[in-house]
Amino acid sequence: MSGNTFGRLLRLTSFGESHGPGVGGVLDGCPAGLELSEADIQADLDLRKPGRGPASTGRKEADSVRLLSGIFEGVTTGTPIAFYVANEDQRPRDYAGLADAFRPGHADWAYFQKFCGIRDYRGGGRASGRETVARVAAGAVAKKILRRRNVVIHAGCVEFGGIAASPEETELAEAFAWPYFAPSERTAALWDARVEEARAAGDTLGGIVAIAARNVPAGLGEPVFDKLEAVLAHALMSVGAVKGVEVGEGFAAARLTGSQNNDPLLPGGGFASNHAGGTLGGISSGQDIILRAAVKPIASIARKQRTVDTRGRPREILIGGRHDLSAIPRIVPVLSAMTALVLADALLLQRRMEPV
Amino acid sequence: MSGNTFGRLLRLTSFGESHGPGVGGVLDGCPAGLELSEADIQADLDLRKPGRGPASTGRKEADSVRLLSGIFEGVTTGTPIAFYVANEDQRPRDYAGLADAFRPGHADWAYFQKFCGIRDYRGGGRASGRETVARVAAGAVAKKILRRRNVVIHAGCVEFGGIAASPEETELAEAFAWPYFAPSERTAALWDARVEEARAAGDTLGGIVAIAARNVPAGLGEPVFDKLEAVLAHALMSVGAVKGVEVGEGFAAARLTGSQNNDPLLPGGGFASNHAGGTLGGISSGQDIILRAAVKPIASIARKQRTVDTRGRPREILIGGRHDLSAIPRIVPVLSAMTALVLADALLLQRRMEPV
Amino acid sequence: MSGNTFGRLLRLTSFGESHGPGVGGVLDGCPAGLELSEADIQADLDLRKPGRGPASTGRKEADSVRLLSGIFEGVTTGTPIAFYVANEDQRPRDYAGLADAFRPGHADWAYFQKFCGIRDYRGGGRASGRETVARVAAGAVAKKILRRRNVVIHAGCVEFGGIAASPEETELAEAFAWPYFAPSERTAALWDARVEEARAAGDTLGGIVAIAARNVPAGLGEPVFDKLEAVLAHALMSVGAVKGVEVGEGFAAARLTGSQNNDPLLPGGGFASNHAGGTLGGISSGQDIILRAAVKPIASIARKQRTVDTRGRPREILIGGRHDLSAIPRIVPVLSAMTALVLADALLLQRRMEPV
Amino acid sequence: MSGNTFGRLLRLTSFGESHGPGVGGVLDGCPAGLELSEADIQADLDLRKPGRGPASTGRKEADSVRLLSGIFEGVTTGTPIAFYVANEDQRPRDYAGLADAFRPGHADWAYFQKFCGIRDYRGGGRASGRETVARVAAGAVAKKILRRRNVVIHAGCVEFGGIAASPEETELAEAFAWPYFAPSERTAALWDARVEEARAAGDTLGGIVAIAARNVPAGLGEPVFDKLEAVLAHALMSVGAVKGVEVGEGFAAARLTGSQNNDPLLPGGGFASNHAGGTLGGISSGQDIILRAAVKPIASIARKQRTVDTRGRPREILIGGRHDLSAIPRIVPVLSAMTALVLADALLLQRRMEPV
Repeated sequence: MSGNTFGRLLRLTSFGESHGPGVGGVLDGCPAGLELSEADIQADLDLRKPGRGPASTGRKEADSVRLLSGIFEGVTTGTPIAFYVANEDQRPRDYAGLADAFRPGHADWAYFQKFCGIRDYRGGGRASGRETVARVAAGAVAKKILRRRNVVIHAGCVEFGGIAASPEETELAEAFAWPYFAPSERTAALWDARVEEARAAGDTLGGIVAIAARNVPAGLGEPVFDKLEAVLAHALMSVGAVKGVEVGEGFAAARLTGSQNNDPLLPGGGFASNHAGGTLGGISSGQDIILRAAVKPIASIARKQRTVDTRGRPREILIGGRHDLSAIPRIVPVLSAMTALVLADALLLQRRMEPV
Repeated sequence: MSGNTFGRLLRLTSFGESHGPGVGGVLDGCPAGLELSEADIQADLDLRKPGRGPASTGRKEADSVRLLSGIFEGVTTGTPIAFYVANEDQRPRDYAGLADAFRPGHADWAYFQKFCGIRDYRGGGRASGRETVARVAAGAVAKKILRRRNVVIHAGCVEFGGIAASPEETELAEAFAWPYFAPSERTAALWDARVEEARAAGDTLGGIVAIAARNVPAGLGEPVFDKLEAVLAHALMSVGAVKGVEVGEGFAAARLTGSQNNDPLLPGGGFASNHAGGTLGGISSGQDIILRAAVKPIASIARKQRTVDTRGRPREILIGGRHDLSAIPRIVPVLSAMTALVLADALLLQRRMEPV
Repeated sequence: MSGNTFGRLLRLTSFGESHGPGVGGVLDGCPAGLELSEADIQADLDLRKPGRGPASTGRKEADSVRLLSGIFEGVTTGTPIAFYVANEDQRPRDYAGLADAFRPGHADWAYFQKFCGIRDYRGGGRASGRETVARVAAGAVAKKILRRRNVVIHAGCVEFGGIAASPEETELAEAFAWPYFAPSERTAALWDARVEEARAAGDTLGGIVAIAARNVPAGLGEPVFDKLEAVLAHALMSVGAVKGVEVGEGFAAARLTGSQNNDPLLPGGGFASNHAGGTLGGISSGQDIILRAAVKPIASIARKQRTVDTRGRPREILIGGRHDLSAIPRIVPVLSAMTALVLADALLLQRRMEPV
Repeated sequence: MSGNTFGRLLRLTSFGESHGPGVGGVLDGCPAGLELSEADIQADLDLRKPGRGPASTGRKEADSVRLLSGIFEGVTTGTPIAFYVANEDQRPRDYAGLADAFRPGHADWAYFQKFCGIRDYRGGGRASGRETVARVAAGAVAKKILRRRNVVIHAGCVEFGGIAASPEETELAEAFAWPYFAPSERTAALWDARVEEARAAGDTLGGIVAIAARNVPAGLGEPVFDKLEAVLAHALMSVGAVKGVEVGEGFAAARLTGSQNNDPLLPGGGFASNHAGGTLGGISSGQDIILRAAVKPIASIARKQRTVDTRGRPREILIGGRHDLSAIPRIVPVLSAMTALVLADALLLQRRMEPV
């Protein structure tokens, strides 16, 4: 209820603040017998690690994960898997000047209202993107569950700073690569230029992330309220900076007619097209699940901004600290992880339906 | 877990099929002492009633709601409020020819896969839009809870069949009116013409619905996984035909820079703009909550379509039965109801935080 | 959260008051393909029907159940199963004198406190034993799920009005029969005499119910908080009038030594004894699940009692209406149903663990 | 769902094994603004610390708790409170001989069945009493929430190894003291003798714990399934070794008549007696909540026992390792903590009902 647990049979409970001792989580409901090591999780954490790439923060974190429970002799035991990543490169002093002012576009004001005037103002506290470490770590476990059924998830950036990749590029391939998880080097070069431009202007950028889940078995999703796309939308929109989510044709479907948008069924269990994006009536159809998420520009810009202090008086602030210029590309592994958590959970949930 | 319950403290459990005895629900968690009558609920149900307007189905349903529990002497008692609407105008025979074929764009195939080959094929069974009766009825109660705190929800159509209302019209006003919940008569006339065109072509249309919730107190929403917009996205995307959801600038935010997208705070608790759409860090900021949902065209077109039967053999079908030409406008009260359920639930949930 | 839903994958949501229109429920999560008819449910409802037997109320209710959803062509579809039983023999006037007084031993005072002074005082309203209709109806479905795995539940009364059946009788057999669900005619005759004695004194009686679930597969129950016996205790203690629950040796285990209480394992998967009552570490061991529940005497006695009115002033009341002299035997089918709901739910939940 | 999370608004998620790196938990839903330090939690942990008292294990653990999140400047922030206690005195080798045999009375066999043959056999793994560290730590926070409303919980042992304290002693007082949390020194001396006797016989002992919660406001508990005593029974029965739970008169109520068992209401909001044990209709009445739990003797006896190995072959084992002779007295703080978690949760949940 209190918002720090996600999932039904596969449940992640997350904890930690940006400048507290560390961040971590507990993943409950993972079946027994899955081979799992810290290295498996570390590989995914390294993809979202701070301090790398053209649009990155200056913060350096090793982000070394430690498994605290749930593993014995290299396999999961079916008991909760707890993991922990210590914060190492905290610099709470960077935020001293912000103790009594609210940064525009940040959670500061809303947390102040929600939590009765109490707020860990150091780097956003719980509202920091640093909490996504737990999502990525848990997602790595979910992906191992999915792989048993051959389900794989591809995620990449298809638009950055207003510059979209070409449609043929965005046919999601395994080629999505660092930096930016861009579909091609050519497009990555255009985005590099956009980054330089924004940096010079003391400004920040957003973009659009596309996700495809392949080999998803038909039958996942729980009508009527927990349709697969509804839970996926919940999952993606729960990531800070995401402002929109669509499945298949998404907003474009509003402009199609029924005869354009319907996907004819073919003999053999396939479909002639995938406008739907992999679900029918909220249940996976066996087609690829296709999602897109809109990511807003980072709120911490390197310009003076108008705001108010905790007493409501006008203030002008210039935000220090170390900030990414864009949530892209570090948000890509996070959205991929959330997709994995939803699909692995749905997979486990559907098992109750299998004939005895 | 099984998908037919929505909410945390205010929970709707829904039941019923299109051509079974009826549809209904149980709303648990409504505080005691709220004045509530069948007429209160009927008023909202009448807004989504079938059989009216240019884009409507021919199905006629009185949709008379009956309260079965939870009310005593005209007020809620704090116990579950059960309500029931009998199906009256069923014509299951219309669907006899569809017993062994899967309609493209419908849930048929996916339900068949999920539920082990078992399926109530009459009018979509549980996957029919008829289940939204329960959402609207429960939403009417949620709105009464919200009204105690002065929260009101406006919802309307801002784009239909590819024809968008003008930006100045879409400043959401209380003017949204039947038919279409269109922002102006001029726009409704354009949409009338689009309907005629589609009907002549045996085709169907989609559109975009906008929702604004006003006077929402700051502090609602539960970080990190149950951010207010995440739960709202879940709620809206759980409505059949919705393919995308966005909050505030939504997908447009991906193209803005941070300096354009940030909303400066003003002395007195306000903001200079509302690009965010009413939340910061997943918590309501006190600004209007602004949402948009993309609605796909109805899958039941009046044209022959290719598909397969339950044995995987190719079939050509022409769907009979009575079908709306667009889910707009009947989906508007449904999306409004889902928004109300989320906000009333969030309001009750936030009360635990109030100082003793 | 609000207390009217029970279960995890198999979830019962219940509604209805003693003297409102009726009582019913929604059972979500039943797998598709189970043969189910109103007659299946009616058979169990008839076991708890009012108006029969020596210790019974005078209230006459046909308790005819109607299925409103979730069934098609005689089998469950995997969608919510809603059922409804109309109240027919209401006599709210019997309670008119109790509108402003609190009956001792009843929920009246506590409901008044909880629900801010609002209360349906007619026959206890929601706090009436009449809500158990929904438990029994849902339990009938759960039992059909269990039967697929050969699990059966026996329940009977082993002590009534202070008169215990002999130990050899309480080896739970299928012989438990109406009235009282007593283990033998000899014991039932002793209890008849006790009923007459109590009736003459204007007093009421309690007793102890024993439940045995046979053929329960090993592996059910979720450590550490949802141990099988913990969820069973929750289920049984949630039935009005139950004041204690024990598993296996129960309170007697507190007086045994470890060497007396341990159950040695035998080759072939069995055990030399069943002091544990069928669980180890909160997980079913494959032995019979053995439970006992203590049932308090009915609070509505035919004697004048001291109490207070809603303004806190002293009152003397004599409760009218129609009341059972003991919750035994009508509570027996209710406790059996709750056991079935827990076990069927646990069975579905364990399926996620089965190897792919 | 997977059993390692407990609570509704105040939710504890627990993790850790007996001989893994450590044990801990995440407590979500604690309101902001509560003063909380590691010392607050340590004080309660010290009450259940191993290695002390006549009936104790030889295992030595400092059990130093570390807070990992949710606290800023000495107060809770409303975000998840994670805590961790490293295991220091593991001796997994003690259990090497048990890798392929099932200890009678332990979870070994049932875990093996549940988790598909996978099992951390070192000291019971997750099934060890060591997991109760998380319960006690979270309970310490719950108690601080309760103290704001003046609610206090007293718990002690009233029967040990078959020797009951006298009835006048068991009027629960704050006098319950270490060792045994016995009601008097005289009774503790009797129990000392019983311990020596059992130790000489290589045997173990059980007992009965009584709990009283005072100043609990009326109105807590959620009918019909989450009656306050049902959730309390769930909570207590979820603690390993507990085999029975009763409220108020408990099993004795089955032998009383209604006129004996009813508690007359008195002017001023009080009652003439408290047979009910503090609830009416599943809702707290404002009287003391009175609970009793039966604790079985420890399964690890110092005698040879018959059992089978993982291939089903007969084995005779003698359990090594370090084991308490009784779960009493270390279980007393655990049961107290579980009671606190339930009551604090119920208190937060009831706030939604407060008039606006």
